[in-house]
Amino acid sequence: MEKFVTRASAAQPLKNADELIDSVETFIFDCDGVIWKGDKLIDGVPETLDLLRSKGKRLVFVTNNSTKSRKQYGKKFETLGLNVSEEEIFASSFAAAAYLKSIDFPKDKKVYVIGEDGILKELELAGFQYLGGPEDGAKKIELKPGFLMEHDKDVGAVVVGFDRYFNYYKVQYGTLCIRENPGCLFIATNRDAVTHLTDAQEWAGGGSMVGALLGSTQREPQVVGKPSTFMMDYVANKFGILKSQICMVGDRLDTDILFGQNGGCKTLLVLSGVTSLSMLQSPNNTIQPDFYTNKISDFLSLKAAAV
Amino acid sequence: MEKFVTRASAAQPLKNADELIDSVETFIFDCDGVIWKGDKLIDGVPETLDLLRSKGKRLVFVTNNSTKSRKQYGKKFETLGLNVSEEEIFASSFAAAAYLKSIDFPKDKKVYVIGEDGILKELELAGFQYLGGPEDGAKKIELKPGFLMEHDKDVGAVVVGFDRYFNYYKVQYGTLCIRENPGCLFIATNRDAVTHLTDAQEWAGGGSMVGALLGSTQREPQVVGKPSTFMMDYVANKFGILKSQICMVGDRLDTDILFGQNGGCKTLLVLSGVTSLSMLQSPNNTIQPDFYTNKISDFLSLKAAAV
Repeated sequence: MEKFVTRASAAQPLKNADELIDSVETFIFDCDGVIWKGDKLIDGVPETLDLLRSKGKRLVFVTNNSTKSRKQYGKKFETLGLNVSEEEIFASSFAAAAYLKSIDFPKDKKVYVIGEDGILKELELAGFQYLGGPEDGAKKIELKPGFLMEHDKDVGAVVVGFDRYFNYYKVQYGTLCIRENPGCLFIATNRDAVTHLTDAQEWAGGGSMVGALLGSTQREPQVVGKPSTFMMDYVANKFGILKSQICMVGDRLDTDILFGQNGGCKTLLVLSGVTSLSMLQSPNNTIQPDFYTNKISDFLSLKAAAV
Repeated sequence: MEKFVTRASAAQPLKNADELIDSVETFIFDCDGVIWKGDKLIDGVPETLDLLRSKGKRLVFVTNNSTKSRKQYGKKFETLGLNVSEEEIFASSFAAAAYLKSIDFPKDKKVYVIGEDGILKELELAGFQYLGGPEDGAKKIELKPGFLMEHDKDVGAVVVGFDRYFNYYKVQYGTLCIRENPGCLFIATNRDAVTHLTDAQEWAGGGSMVGALLGSTQREPQVVGKPSTFMMDYVANKFGILKSQICMVGDRLDTDILFGQNGGCKTLLVLSGVTSLSMLQSPNNTIQPDFYTNKISDFLSLKAAAV
């Protein structure tokens, strides 16, 4: 019987899906590039999830995308015809709020948000005070002599995620909070270089907004999304799962696969997103998942072949 | 007679200005924090420059600020009552155009600009085709399914400088050019964390805009402003000066003083800008200028005392 390869070895093509499925109790799926691409469901996903559920596997969906809340993500799954509950969804918007809860961030302090609605919604649900977000998207600075931007001295954390309404006002406001409010935290939902806002193109990701704040504050952020282990630890604690009983499935080496490996999970790379086989096998790539396959619905055919 | 200390030693307070003045033929001055602060001239600057000119010293003014062209900077000097010619001014806007000239950037290629008017003006004077800049400041992306941002395949360089009209459109456009146009250059006017747009506050600097592009492209830029040696080499070649005959005067350790040291010049830190004496003497600071003093007009009093 084939043994699971160690991470130091080159990734193996997935040949026997049943063996992988039987070896774990939970699958954590990245969404963009695994479940969908932009607004299109990837072929065979519903049947694959049904198969896994029929085998009693726990399914968790993790995304670095912070533009939506868990509830809003739930609607996206529903629209695409997938039967996934809110409690199975862990977006980095939720992770930001969960992180603040985990460190007992004071409720009388405020959070300044560079990011979209999902972060605001999750902060609100968690009972935190916040400001910024989309409503600062139209704000401008006025550079007459002596002009000074006031900032709220009660801001104790700046949360930065993908923000299509990103502007200089937000950069300066967030920078002032981080630089001038004693102990102010700098939290990044993710540092992804690209994101899939639409399926037609790769879009500059949350790494841009975080990079801008890093450039002005010269401070490193606390990342709560992949590949940081915060979400993995949170999921494992929440459901009481052993991490060795998890298989992380994703399309990105430097976020998904690293996230799985950092957490001590099994890892499966799918080639239905940003990573091609040649990128995986390039001598420049140092991140090797345990297995790779074209798409998650290979679980169906590889299962059939193995029987 | 006192010897000039080496850079490895701690900076010495400037005691004998005449000795320093006599030891070099050129003074390169940073502007913000040395000549002016925001829109206010620093005390005693006109008299100091007059003294140096009367002693036959060449004066050069170097700034990482790329929002103005040389010509526009000339007007700022004039407004402040300083008699400085355009040819004595080297802004990073000019450096970006000079860099492209130095590498024979093809005239049939285009430059995409994330930055302000100064860069556009200098590119135009140098005969380069450009797009972007302030006119992209109001552009938005529309994220309907299937939407794709078109970009000009003839863009061969993206120049990034401070941009108060910074937005997501520009990040995505610049990222597409750098990622998808073969050989496209990524040029930064500077990576300053802070800039002095007004004298009332420190403002997030060009490092923010550069950081955003770095986050999305994962490419390191070619920096043409301080502390890169490009401008120093350019000035030295232009005027036929030996770098050992230059004293670089600035208020920032990690740009001005490093710039002078990278170029093999003498260095003088003034405490009239962002750096305090305690920052200079902090055990965490590894950059030691040859000398430090409060402000350049100390040349007048230290001269008197030394006579």
